[in-house]
Amino acid sequence: MSILVVGSMALDTIKTPFGKCREVLGGSATYFSVSARFFESHVNLVAVVGKDFPQKYVNFLKKKRIDLGGLEVGKGKTFRWEGEYGWDFSNPRTIATHLNVLADFDPVIPEEYKRSKYVFLANIDPHLQNKVLAQMKNPALVACDTMNYWIGHRRKELVRLLKKIDLFFLNESEAKELTGESSLIKAAKGVFKMGPEKIIIKKGEHGALLFSGDSIFSAPAYLMESIFDPTGAGDTFAGGVMGYLARENLINGTTLRNAIVRGTVMATFAVEDFSLRRLGAINKSDIARRLKNFKKLTHF
Amino acid sequence: MSILVVGSMALDTIKTPFGKCREVLGGSATYFSVSARFFESHVNLVAVVGKDFPQKYVNFLKKKRIDLGGLEVGKGKTFRWEGEYGWDFSNPRTIATHLNVLADFDPVIPEEYKRSKYVFLANIDPHLQNKVLAQMKNPALVACDTMNYWIGHRRKELVRLLKKIDLFFLNESEAKELTGESSLIKAAKGVFKMGPEKIIIKKGEHGALLFSGDSIFSAPAYLMESIFDPTGAGDTFAGGVMGYLARENLINGTTLRNAIVRGTVMATFAVEDFSLRRLGAINKSDIARRLKNFKKLTHF
Repeated sequence: MSILVVGSMALDTIKTPFGKCREVLGGSATYFSVSARFFESHVNLVAVVGKDFPQKYVNFLKKKRIDLGGLEVGKGKTFRWEGEYGWDFSNPRTIATHLNVLADFDPVIPEEYKRSKYVFLANIDPHLQNKVLAQMKNPALVACDTMNYWIGHRRKELVRLLKKIDLFFLNESEAKELTGESSLIKAAKGVFKMGPEKIIIKKGEHGALLFSGDSIFSAPAYLMESIFDPTGAGDTFAGGVMGYLARENLINGTTLRNAIVRGTVMATFAVEDFSLRRLGAINKSDIARRLKNFKKLTHF
Repeated sequence: MSILVVGSMALDTIKTPFGKCREVLGGSATYFSVSARFFESHVNLVAVVGKDFPQKYVNFLKKKRIDLGGLEVGKGKTFRWEGEYGWDFSNPRTIATHLNVLADFDPVIPEEYKRSKYVFLANIDPHLQNKVLAQMKNPALVACDTMNYWIGHRRKELVRLLKKIDLFFLNESEAKELTGESSLIKAAKGVFKMGPEKIIIKKGEHGALLFSGDSIFSAPAYLMESIFDPTGAGDTFAGGVMGYLARENLINGTTLRNAIVRGTVMATFAVEDFSLRRLGAINKSDIARRLKNFKKLTHF
């Protein structure tokens, strides 16, 4: 079943203890769509770039057969993020954020995308996430992501959005900040009250938790020998989750758990190199192999 | 099969965000033995207390049918630890440590304990751990725990000990400090070179990892609605692991994984109240129920 993702496309400048890169392909919609595309053949992307966006990156996404019918080229420069990771990969230091064309982004969903069954509203202003959702016709599952900034600065819009969300992706600190609870179980209960029936709390290198009704699933992280650059891991994870669900076109305890396992496995490829260098170079058998390892890792 | 534990018995004074307690029963040997006793009926304890050690705590352990033939009453006061936890339960602040009788502890293993098949050398000076081990006759499995202090201050003795250890329990920061590696996979490889064939890295609220040859097992933590006091969780975990292994009397991939799951479940009881108040009040059906929940939590 078709997937729609609305999010950012970016040029990232990143420094980690292992090296640095300059103005490489990034953005939530990018990581998400490349990851989801391994599972589901119809991935529709809505995002905005500037006139300076390198054609080679457009070609890369075309080659991955992601539908770019919703990729707008705005007046001005592409969104840029510059950050640095220390040894603690969970907390990057943002050096600079240049919104550029993203500042005026007003996503228009192409007519042929409006019936996409699986919708992922990546981390952008909740005001825009609401506007996107208003354009959609009868989606089967609506998921979204957010970030601390929106929880602090666009709470009202976010709360309005959450009433219409089926599956909410957020990380530990976001869950705690949104609900004012220090325990994740209590935080999940608080989020349930805001609307979403299913919640995935991402714990980075420590795995992920799914809350769905009374059921909780605790997925351990895939153990990596080394992490090179964690940028995009969360969106790649969401891409694996949503791609799997769209392919199965069935939402229940079993498919959700298996979707999280796929998402976890996809994220491991994202963190092995800068940008989408590794994620863009793998094939389905690489995924199958790592999935098999993950099962071995967690079976008892 | 019989278990021997050599470790500390303590009077703990603890403050957490939820309350405080004064001079309550604690110590590695205490938590370990009470936990292990749920799985294996022969748990032999070697430790030292002072003349001031409350008889009610001795009675408590007797009632749990832990063999106290190796409990020495030394001249002087019982070991005391005073600590405070903030919201981050992984790092207590030590307010005071009074070694008292523990300073001169020179464990003598009673003749009838020397043939214990499963040996756990809880966190004490590695010099003493070596002395204990030298007294044992043909154990089937020798496990030990340690702490950052010994890694920094008794490295030579610890390295000497590790050559004779089958199963090494340590936490993330200890694994990294001992080996100088930031990745846990690399740290485990470094520890393998020091002797132990099996390593359990404890990640607190994030679960535990087992490394055994080429095989890795990643056990998620049991998700708790609230943690009251994490003191003793690691020793309770080790008690569950060793108790299960001693009962099964078989060391392979399956029993080790299942042992870690038992250890994880036991630790959840330790953290629900101060001291052994909760751990000492549960029965086997409480454990079975929580084990069932854990399986549900992690199955996919």
